[in-house]
Amino acid sequence: MAKFFGESRAIRLAQPLLRGPPSAKHRCTGPRWAEPPATAVKVPTPSWCPVATKMTRTLVMSSSRPGHGGSHPATKQQIADQDIDAHGNAGLVRSQLDGLPVRVIRGAHGDPAYSPPTGFRYDGLFQVANHWSKAGKSGYRIWQFHLVRLREGDTTAPPLGVPPPAGTAGAVPRVAAVVQRQVRNSAVVEVVKRLHGYRCQVCGEQLLVPTAPYAEGAHIRPLGRPHHGPDVPENVLCLCPNDHVRFDNGALYLLDDLTVVDGSTGRRLGMLHQQRNHRIDPAYVRYHRELW
Amino acid sequence: MAKFFGESRAIRLAQPLLRGPPSAKHRCTGPRWAEPPATAVKVPTPSWCPVATKMTRTLVMSSSRPGHGGSHPATKQQIADQDIDAHGNAGLVRSQLDGLPVRVIRGAHGDPAYSPPTGFRYDGLFQVANHWSKAGKSGYRIWQFHLVRLREGDTTAPPLGVPPPAGTAGAVPRVAAVVQRQVRNSAVVEVVKRLHGYRCQVCGEQLLVPTAPYAEGAHIRPLGRPHHGPDVPENVLCLCPNDHVRFDNGALYLLDDLTVVDGSTGRRLGMLHQQRNHRIDPAYVRYHRELW
Repeated sequence: MAKFFGESRAIRLAQPLLRGPPSAKHRCTGPRWAEPPATAVKVPTPSWCPVATKMTRTLVMSSSRPGHGGSHPATKQQIADQDIDAHGNAGLVRSQLDGLPVRVIRGAHGDPAYSPPTGFRYDGLFQVANHWSKAGKSGYRIWQFHLVRLREGDTTAPPLGVPPPAGTAGAVPRVAAVVQRQVRNSAVVEVVKRLHGYRCQVCGEQLLVPTAPYAEGAHIRPLGRPHHGPDVPENVLCLCPNDHVRFDNGALYLLDDLTVVDGSTGRRLGMLHQQRNHRIDPAYVRYHRELW
Repeated sequence: MAKFFGESRAIRLAQPLLRGPPSAKHRCTGPRWAEPPATAVKVPTPSWCPVATKMTRTLVMSSSRPGHGGSHPATKQQIADQDIDAHGNAGLVRSQLDGLPVRVIRGAHGDPAYSPPTGFRYDGLFQVANHWSKAGKSGYRIWQFHLVRLREGDTTAPPLGVPPPAGTAGAVPRVAAVVQRQVRNSAVVEVVKRLHGYRCQVCGEQLLVPTAPYAEGAHIRPLGRPHHGPDVPENVLCLCPNDHVRFDNGALYLLDDLTVVDGSTGRRLGMLHQQRNHRIDPAYVRYHRELW
């Protein structure tokens, strides 16, 4: 049986901020929660389910009632920053980090382009591509999540009717899996990695495997919607996988002078390792810093 | 202009060991090299090219003439282990680590199911999915590479006719990129990660990002062809991304007693961090160790 979002007893309703056609990529503003509807929402099980259903959260979106996360319970006005550690936000971050899909149910009273005229509608499985914060209309910080609709081709089909093998014995069925993390490479990233000798600009480590070092390129201002960061050397860091995960999720950020800062404690960890031929643009550094 | 494999002046010919239909996944045995053909091979440029052409290696495969990598130049018999640091092998590993595609040209005299009757044929772009070693018929170690044909949907289309932006100015075109690394998650992986509290079983580190820890599941005996490792807890490790890259590429392996060993130096690094409820099957540990 599908669990509701965060496995909470209360069904929480988030206000969507969706742009583009329903089948395209969506942007969903960080939750404003409210009480559940009186009637239960029936969640159909799709014919393809990438991982065990109990791992899949359900996100019910409706703008009919604003909710928690810094809003006043009576006036619904934002009166404080939203908290990334709040139950709903933290649940979506967990889904992003593990690549676990989110079932989306849209309610009436949301954006007319995507919302059903009445009641609730199951709109399928989405992946949480990334998250960030921004100043809302009230001036307080709100969290946003980029949801991307999953297609059947994005997952490995489950082993229909084939039980999992016990221990080392038995057949080996196809694995029902989702993509947890995807690292992309480009010609610009290649140039930056070679300039740094595949050495991480944060920890200075060169991750060695037999025959070759390994590194990843991290775009400071993220690529794609809604950030539209460019694929230019001034916007790329050469990082080890661990620091890439940290940087992309706000556990690390940079000051304008390229000091590395721990995103949780605010502690300065040292200067970014630099190469003379690789200039970092402070405008991208500021953009990234303001996301967290 | 496409450079030949490893940007060497000599074109090297690898002997393929291919199974399955040409459009499916292929397994290509680690190189036995020989001299280039007298005539140049024309490499057509496909209408979609995921990264700058100069980054793309070309692999010419023909079994007509065995070559270097432990084989006798006259008898063509394997007389020594192949070396992963050899020019051709190391080039394919580099392509794998960076997700860079390889242009495959097949020559006559290879496996009749895939080889042209005469001359050479350009067979498109492939990605190096992984590599490993095994004992060849001669008893000496040979290296093998799993090549997967790239489809147009596997890459981001290049910005046709759009010049890259200079610095921070200009438009932001779509980025021509390839997938460098993909981490998959499954219900079994989720269970193992939770059992270990998302703490790496090699280094003991819990990679923290705001709100949540991050870890990856590594299958000891790899999933899919040709290894067919099962998706069971006994075959999964909870690792940080850095140690996952190391483990998947032979920079780390385990002894039967779960001692962690540096794959390059043979130095024992310590015991694998374990949890009482998570048993590791030594059969998978041995399988993985024998790949390197």
